[in-house]
Amino acid sequence: MSLVVAGSVAYDGVETPHGRVERMLGGAATYISLAASYFTQVRIVAVVGDDFAQDDADLLAGRNIDLEGLERVPGKTFFWEGKYTDDMNDRVTLRTDLNVFADFQPKLPESYQNARYLLLGNIQPSLQRTVLDQMKHLRLVGGDTMNFWISDFRGELLKTIKRWDFLLINDHEARLLSGENNLRKAANKILEMGPHTVVIKRGEYGAMLFRHDAYFIVPGYLLENIFDPTGAGDCFAGGFIGYLAEHGFSLEGDHISRGMLSRAVIYGSVMGSFCCERFGVDRFRTLTREEIDARFEEFRKFTSF
Amino acid sequence: MSLVVAGSVAYDGVETPHGRVERMLGGAATYISLAASYFTQVRIVAVVGDDFAQDDADLLAGRNIDLEGLERVPGKTFFWEGKYTDDMNDRVTLRTDLNVFADFQPKLPESYQNARYLLLGNIQPSLQRTVLDQMKHLRLVGGDTMNFWISDFRGELLKTIKRWDFLLINDHEARLLSGENNLRKAANKILEMGPHTVVIKRGEYGAMLFRHDAYFIVPGYLLENIFDPTGAGDCFAGGFIGYLAEHGFSLEGDHISRGMLSRAVIYGSVMGSFCCERFGVDRFRTLTREEIDARFEEFRKFTSF
Repeated sequence: MSLVVAGSVAYDGVETPHGRVERMLGGAATYISLAASYFTQVRIVAVVGDDFAQDDADLLAGRNIDLEGLERVPGKTFFWEGKYTDDMNDRVTLRTDLNVFADFQPKLPESYQNARYLLLGNIQPSLQRTVLDQMKHLRLVGGDTMNFWISDFRGELLKTIKRWDFLLINDHEARLLSGENNLRKAANKILEMGPHTVVIKRGEYGAMLFRHDAYFIVPGYLLENIFDPTGAGDCFAGGFIGYLAEHGFSLEGDHISRGMLSRAVIYGSVMGSFCCERFGVDRFRTLTREEIDARFEEFRKFTSF
Repeated sequence: MSLVVAGSVAYDGVETPHGRVERMLGGAATYISLAASYFTQVRIVAVVGDDFAQDDADLLAGRNIDLEGLERVPGKTFFWEGKYTDDMNDRVTLRTDLNVFADFQPKLPESYQNARYLLLGNIQPSLQRTVLDQMKHLRLVGGDTMNFWISDFRGELLKTIKRWDFLLINDHEARLLSGENNLRKAANKILEMGPHTVVIKRGEYGAMLFRHDAYFIVPGYLLENIFDPTGAGDCFAGGFIGYLAEHGFSLEGDHISRGMLSRAVIYGSVMGSFCCERFGVDRFRTLTREEIDARFEEFRKFTSF
């Protein structure tokens, strides 16, 4: 069933210990959409400037991503530049030019409004709400956020996530949002804010899913070389909701859905791991569904006992 | 089958964000033995001074640990004092008084020498070798080490672990020993140093087991409160080898042994998690095998998909 992905489509400048790229396709909605496109029909909602390259549009269209909701306006595309630390567990933002994104008002095409699944990438909470308001027959909605919105737009954010089924968040952000250092306690507090499911991403250490009655933990995939972690969290989100949309996940039938949610976390982890194997979105130029399913089975092999 | 555990029996002074204890039973051999005692007959090799309390000897004897190899000599028992950081992922050593441990020369009682399993806690590599030399019919030997021996006694250490079946080591130490930052590469280098099995402990993030032909990863157990992480790595070691000794693990029959090794990692994780629930060895005053097996099943539940 089809999935609407809203967020940023951007150009990134990235430096990691493995090299530097001055300008390449990036943005949360890009990574989420590419990852989810291996599982389901994706419809993207975002804005780009008139500098947006046809090659980049072609890459998305080549993955069968619907670009009707990708608005093109005069001006420059959102640009972000960052540099990773040596162990790649942290990064410094060197530059953020919102450009055309500053005035973005998401308008969903008619054909998007009946989609059953919605993933809200990390943008202003009020914009996330605007997108949600335009959806008519949602079966599942969730999204991501970041420290800036948690600290400086807390009221807006709480109003927004209250209506979500799931929140995807990293460990630092979970602590910031909940005020709890212990992640189990942090998750329990977030579950009281609205979402019935919280997924905490821990980078190289894996991910955890919490619901009121159950939890699931998976370790990270052990890559020999991490070229560029940019977008890994978004690819996790894309794999997670992509798998749920592919299987028509519904909140009815709790017993079935728990197993499905666990497998969705694994597919999220798989997509995040592939993302790190090349710079930017490059891994998605060659990645196949067969490789994805093979890594899913590898997860089963190295975690079962 | 019986297990010989060699290492330190000590008194510890510990401060964590949850409180402070000026003097309590500690030492690697103590924690390893207590954890392993839930699985198999343990025989301890260590030295204590004439200040060693009868209550502490009684605690060990009460877990059916053989104390024939616990030498008592005039002087004071090894004393260690440390303080944990707020998130308890790191600690500072405030004091180390070797006391009677400075002249320790392990001598194994006759009854110990035919044991089939040997766990060498973190002591000088040359002493670890002295213990191994006295064992006559070993089926499995492994041990732990630390950054001090890796940095300052590297030659001695390499000569020692060359004869081990498995090395238990934390992630920082694995990087230091191998010179590789990536843990998969680090493990592969260590596997060339002698041991056919390397277990890398990652504290709250869990543990990984590597062999030439397979690997296994488990996330850490999510405690709501970590009172005192002292001894958690040693309890992991005790659970790991204790389970293997209980089931008569043998290196023949590789296919069977891999599953057993994975379950041993889980029992190690279970014992490490219980250790953190109280100060020092206190959790072992009440812990039952039923609680241990229940937590093992909980691991299965929150990791399977």
